[in-house]
Amino acid sequence: MERLLKKCQIRNQLIRECMAECLGVYVLILFGCGSVAQVVTTEDKKGQYLSINLGFALGVTFGVFVSRGVSGAHLNPAVSLSLCVLGRHSWMKLPFYIFFQVLGAFLAAATVALQYYDAIQAYSGGDLTVTGPKATAGIFCTYPADYLSVWGGIVDQVIGTAALLLCVLALGDQRNSSIPHYLQPVLVGAVVLVIGISMGSNSGYALNPARDFGPRLFTYIAGWGADVFKAGSGWWWVPIVAPCVGALLGTLIYELMVEVHHPSEQSESQASCPENTNDKMGVELEGVEADREKPT
Amino acid sequence: MERLLKKCQIRNQLIRECMAECLGVYVLILFGCGSVAQVVTTEDKKGQYLSINLGFALGVTFGVFVSRGVSGAHLNPAVSLSLCVLGRHSWMKLPFYIFFQVLGAFLAAATVALQYYDAIQAYSGGDLTVTGPKATAGIFCTYPADYLSVWGGIVDQVIGTAALLLCVLALGDQRNSSIPHYLQPVLVGAVVLVIGISMGSNSGYALNPARDFGPRLFTYIAGWGADVFKAGSGWWWVPIVAPCVGALLGTLIYELMVEVHHPSEQSESQASCPENTNDKMGVELEGVEADREKPT
Amino acid sequence: MERLLKKCQIRNQLIRECMAECLGVYVLILFGCGSVAQVVTTEDKKGQYLSINLGFALGVTFGVFVSRGVSGAHLNPAVSLSLCVLGRHSWMKLPFYIFFQVLGAFLAAATVALQYYDAIQAYSGGDLTVTGPKATAGIFCTYPADYLSVWGGIVDQVIGTAALLLCVLALGDQRNSSIPHYLQPVLVGAVVLVIGISMGSNSGYALNPARDFGPRLFTYIAGWGADVFKAGSGWWWVPIVAPCVGALLGTLIYELMVEVHHPSEQSESQASCPENTNDKMGVELEGVEADREKPT
Amino acid sequence: MERLLKKCQIRNQLIRECMAECLGVYVLILFGCGSVAQVVTTEDKKGQYLSINLGFALGVTFGVFVSRGVSGAHLNPAVSLSLCVLGRHSWMKLPFYIFFQVLGAFLAAATVALQYYDAIQAYSGGDLTVTGPKATAGIFCTYPADYLSVWGGIVDQVIGTAALLLCVLALGDQRNSSIPHYLQPVLVGAVVLVIGISMGSNSGYALNPARDFGPRLFTYIAGWGADVFKAGSGWWWVPIVAPCVGALLGTLIYELMVEVHHPSEQSESQASCPENTNDKMGVELEGVEADREKPT
Repeated sequence: MERLLKKCQIRNQLIRECMAECLGVYVLILFGCGSVAQVVTTEDKKGQYLSINLGFALGVTFGVFVSRGVSGAHLNPAVSLSLCVLGRHSWMKLPFYIFFQVLGAFLAAATVALQYYDAIQAYSGGDLTVTGPKATAGIFCTYPADYLSVWGGIVDQVIGTAALLLCVLALGDQRNSSIPHYLQPVLVGAVVLVIGISMGSNSGYALNPARDFGPRLFTYIAGWGADVFKAGSGWWWVPIVAPCVGALLGTLIYELMVEVHHPSEQSESQASCPENTNDKMGVELEGVEADREKPT
Repeated sequence: MERLLKKCQIRNQLIRECMAECLGVYVLILFGCGSVAQVVTTEDKKGQYLSINLGFALGVTFGVFVSRGVSGAHLNPAVSLSLCVLGRHSWMKLPFYIFFQVLGAFLAAATVALQYYDAIQAYSGGDLTVTGPKATAGIFCTYPADYLSVWGGIVDQVIGTAALLLCVLALGDQRNSSIPHYLQPVLVGAVVLVIGISMGSNSGYALNPARDFGPRLFTYIAGWGADVFKAGSGWWWVPIVAPCVGALLGTLIYELMVEVHHPSEQSESQASCPENTNDKMGVELEGVEADREKPT
Repeated sequence: MERLLKKCQIRNQLIRECMAECLGVYVLILFGCGSVAQVVTTEDKKGQYLSINLGFALGVTFGVFVSRGVSGAHLNPAVSLSLCVLGRHSWMKLPFYIFFQVLGAFLAAATVALQYYDAIQAYSGGDLTVTGPKATAGIFCTYPADYLSVWGGIVDQVIGTAALLLCVLALGDQRNSSIPHYLQPVLVGAVVLVIGISMGSNSGYALNPARDFGPRLFTYIAGWGADVFKAGSGWWWVPIVAPCVGALLGTLIYELMVEVHHPSEQSESQASCPENTNDKMGVELEGVEADREKPT
Repeated sequence: MERLLKKCQIRNQLIRECMAECLGVYVLILFGCGSVAQVVTTEDKKGQYLSINLGFALGVTFGVFVSRGVSGAHLNPAVSLSLCVLGRHSWMKLPFYIFFQVLGAFLAAATVALQYYDAIQAYSGGDLTVTGPKATAGIFCTYPADYLSVWGGIVDQVIGTAALLLCVLALGDQRNSSIPHYLQPVLVGAVVLVIGISMGSNSGYALNPARDFGPRLFTYIAGWGADVFKAGSGWWWVPIVAPCVGALLGTLIYELMVEVHHPSEQSESQASCPENTNDKMGVELEGVEADREKPT
C-alpha cells in the first residue's frame, strides 16, 4: 500500500503547495460551516453561538496543521496578500494560492451540504432561502445584521481582519514571543476564537475572501440562487475587499509599533544572546536578575 | 506495596497492549457516556450539548494518555484497520485489539449504568426505553435523528470518520506538523471536540465501532432489550461499517494530498536539515529568511 | 523590599511544604467555591454548571502551580494517602499534610463568604439555609441529589476518585506519557474538568476530603448551623471516606493494568534507548519505521 | 516595503516599551470590551457571560503576546506598581507605563464604539445611558451590582487582584513551576478566565486601573456624560485604588508563603542540580526515586 502510494508522488513544489492550501481551507470550512449547520438545523438545541466560534477556531487550527509544513498555511487570500506586500511571499504564486483557497472552500461547502442534506430539507421544508425565518444560506457564507450599514460593515471587517493580522504576526515574530512552531496553529485558532467572541455579531466575521466567496458561489449554484449576491444590499463584495484592506492595516500597525523597532540581530549578538530579548518578563517576575550575572 | 505489585508483572507484549487498549477505551467511554448521562438525567440543568462534546473529547485525550506508551492508543477498530492497511500495524494483532476495545467500551457502559443507577431510575421512572420522551438508551450508544435516512447516516459517518483520520494523520506526520508526542493526545481530543461541534447532530458522531457496539451490547443485556438493535430502522450496523469506510477514505485523502509528496529523506538531507520543512510559515512570518543564511 | 522579605525565610522543609499545601488548596477552593457562589447568587445569569466545572478545574491547575515545586501539590488527603500506600510519600508527613489541606479549604471558604457577603445576603434575604429554594450552603460543600441513596453516593464518589487517580497516575507515569512537568498542572485540571462534566450531577464531585470538610466546618461555624452535618441523611462523612477508598482503587487499577508491566529500566536500556517506549504511536502514524533504522 | 519600514525604526528603549504597553492594553480591551458589546447588543443571543470571560482572558493572552518581548507585558498599573515595590522594575518608568496603559485602553474603547456604532444605536435607540434597561455604558467600564456596598466592592476588588498577582507570580517563579516563557501568556489568560468565572458577578472584575479608567474617560467624552463617574455612588475610584492594594497584598502573600523560602541558589547547587526542586511531584508519581540514584 505504502509503495503504491509512493508512485503518486508529485515533486512540483507549487502543485504541492496548492494542494495543501486547498486541503487546509477545506478542513477550515468543513468544521466551521458544519458547526453553523448543526446550530441552525437543530435550532440551537445541539449547539449555540459559542460552538460556532469554536468550530471556526478549531477549523483554523486543524486547517493549519494539515497544510503548514507544505505551504505555510495562509488559508486566506488576505494573509497571502499581506505576506506578498511584506516581501515574504512570491507575487507569482499569489493567484494560484487564491484560486486553490477558494476551491477548497467551495468543495467544503459542498461536503457540508451533502452531510446536512436531510437536516436542511427537514428544517427548511425543502425551500432553500437566503432570508426569512427558515433561511439556510447563512450556514455557508456571511450576511450582515439588519441594523448594519454598508460603511458599518466595511469598518467591522477592516477592524476584525486588522486584529487577526496583528495577533498572527505577533505570534510569528520570534524576536517578540518565540513560540514553538507546533503551538502556533493552536494559538492562531485562539485568535479566531476571540475575534468570533468579540467581533462576530455585526456581520459574521468572514475576515477571509476565500472563506466567504467559495461557499457563496456554491450556494448560488446549488439552489439558493441569485439572492446570495443580492441580500444585504449586495453585501457579497464587502467580505472580499474589506479583509484585504484590514489585513494590510493590521500588518502596518504591528510592523510600526513593534517589529521594526527590534534591535537588528548584529547589534543584539554583540550585547547578549538572542534569547534574552524574551526574558524581560521572566526576569522581572523571577527577581533573579542579580543571581544570573554571577557564574554558577 | 511497590514490591508486591512488581510480582504481578506481565512481560507478554500483546497482553500488555490489549490491556492498555481496553483501559484506554474504558476511560474514553466512562467520561463520554458519563457526560451524556449527566445531561440526560438532569434534563440539561447540569450540562448541555457542548459538555457532551467536551466529555468525549477529554475522554479521548485521557484514554490516549492512559494507553499510548504501551499500545499506541488506537482506541478505535477503524483506526487499527487503517494502520494495518497502511502497513504500520500488524494484521495478526487486529482481532485482539478489536476485541479488547469492544470489551473496554462494554465495561465502561456498565460502570456508567452503575454510577447513574439512581439517576436513571428517578429520571425514567424505572422504565428503560430506547425511544420516547424518557428514553435513556441514547446515554450509551448512538441513534439517528428522526429526519435521517439510512444513506444520509452512512454519508454522515463516512465524512465524520474521514475528517477524524485526516486530522489525526496530519498531527502524527512529523514531516508536516512536528508536534511533540505529549501534545498529540490533547490535539486528538480537540479533533473529536470539533467533530462533535460540527458533525454531531445527525447521528451522534460514533466514528468508532467499539465505542458504539460495546455499550449497545451492554444495553441489550441490561434491560433495554432488542429495541437497541431495532431502533432507527436497524441503525446499529451503520456505526460499525461506515466508520471503517470513512477511516480508509480519510487516510487515502491525506496520503494522496499531502504525505506521499513529502520529499524523501535522502533528497531532503542533501538540500537542507530536516527541520526546515516545517519552517516555511515561521520564516514567512518572521521575515528573516536572508539573515538565516548568514553565519552567526 | 526583597531584602526585607529574605529575613522571613524559613528553612524547615516540612513547614514550607505545609504552607504550600495550605496555599494550594486555598487557591483551589477560592476559585472553585467562588464560581459556585457566582452561579448561585446570580441565579445562573452570570454563569452556569459548565462555569462551575471550569472554576474547579482551573482552581486545581493554579493550586498545583502555586505549590508543586515545594510540596508536590497533593492538595487532597486521598492523593496523599495513595502516595503513602505506594511508598512514594512519607507516612510521617501525612497528618501534617491533611491538617494544612483542610485549613486551606477552611480559610478559602471564609474568603468566599467575605467576598460574596453582600451577594449572599441579597440572594437569601439574610437567611442562611442548607435546604430549600434559597439554600446557600451548597456554595461551600457538597450535598447529594434528592434521588441519591447513600450507597449510590458512595459508589459515585468511589468511581469518581478512582477515575481521578487513574488519570493523574497516567499523566505522571514518565514511561507511559512522558509529559513535561510544566504541563501536568494543566492536564490535571482537565481531568477535574471532565470528571465534573461527566460525574458531577449525583453529588457534586467532591473527590477530596479536605475540599469538602474544610468548607463544611466553616459553614457550621459561620451561621448555617448543624444542618450542614444533618442534611442528605448525614451525607457529610461520605465525601471523606469514599474518596479515600476510590483513590486506592484507582491506584490499584492503573498499577495492575499498566504501570507494573513496563519493562524494567535495565532490560530496556539493553534493547533500546529509553525514549523509544513512547514512540509507538509516533512511529505508526509516521510510517517511517524502516527509515529510522538506516543511518542518516 | 520591508526596507521602507526599517527607516521608521526607533531605538529608544523607553519609547518602544511604552508603545508595546499601549498596543498590549489596546488588544486586551479591544477583545474584552468587544465581547461585552456583542453580548449586550445581541441581548445574549450571540454570546453569554462565559463568552465575556473568554473575551477578556484571550484579550490578556494576546495582549501579552503582542508586548512581552519588548516591555514585559505588565498591561496593568497595579502589576507595574507591585514589580516596582519588589524592586524588579524601575520607579522612573512607572508614570510612563501607566500613561500609555490608560491611553491604549482609551483608544481601544473608541475602536469598540466605532465597530459597534450601528449595533449600539439600534440596541439603545440612540440614547446612550449608564443605568436603566438599555444601558450601554457597561460595555466599556465596570459598575457594581445593585446589592453591593462600597466596602463590599473594595473587598471584592482587593481579593480579586490579590488572587491575580498570587497566581501570576507563581507562574513566573522559575524555582516553583518552571514554565517555558511562551506558555505564560496562555496561563495568565487562564488566570483571568477563572477570576472572571469565580469573582465576576459583584462588580465586573476590573482588577486593573487602566482597563477601567481609560474606557470610562472615553464614555465620558463620547456621549454618556458625567453619569459614568456618578453611577454606583461614585464607583469610579474603587477599580483604581482597590486593585493597587490587592496587587500588593497578593504579592506579599505569595512572597511570604512560598517564594522567599526557596533555598538560595548557592546551597541548592551544592546539594543537587537546579531542576530537582521541580521534580518532587514527578518523582512521587513515577515512583522511580530509587532507580534515579543508580548509575544507568
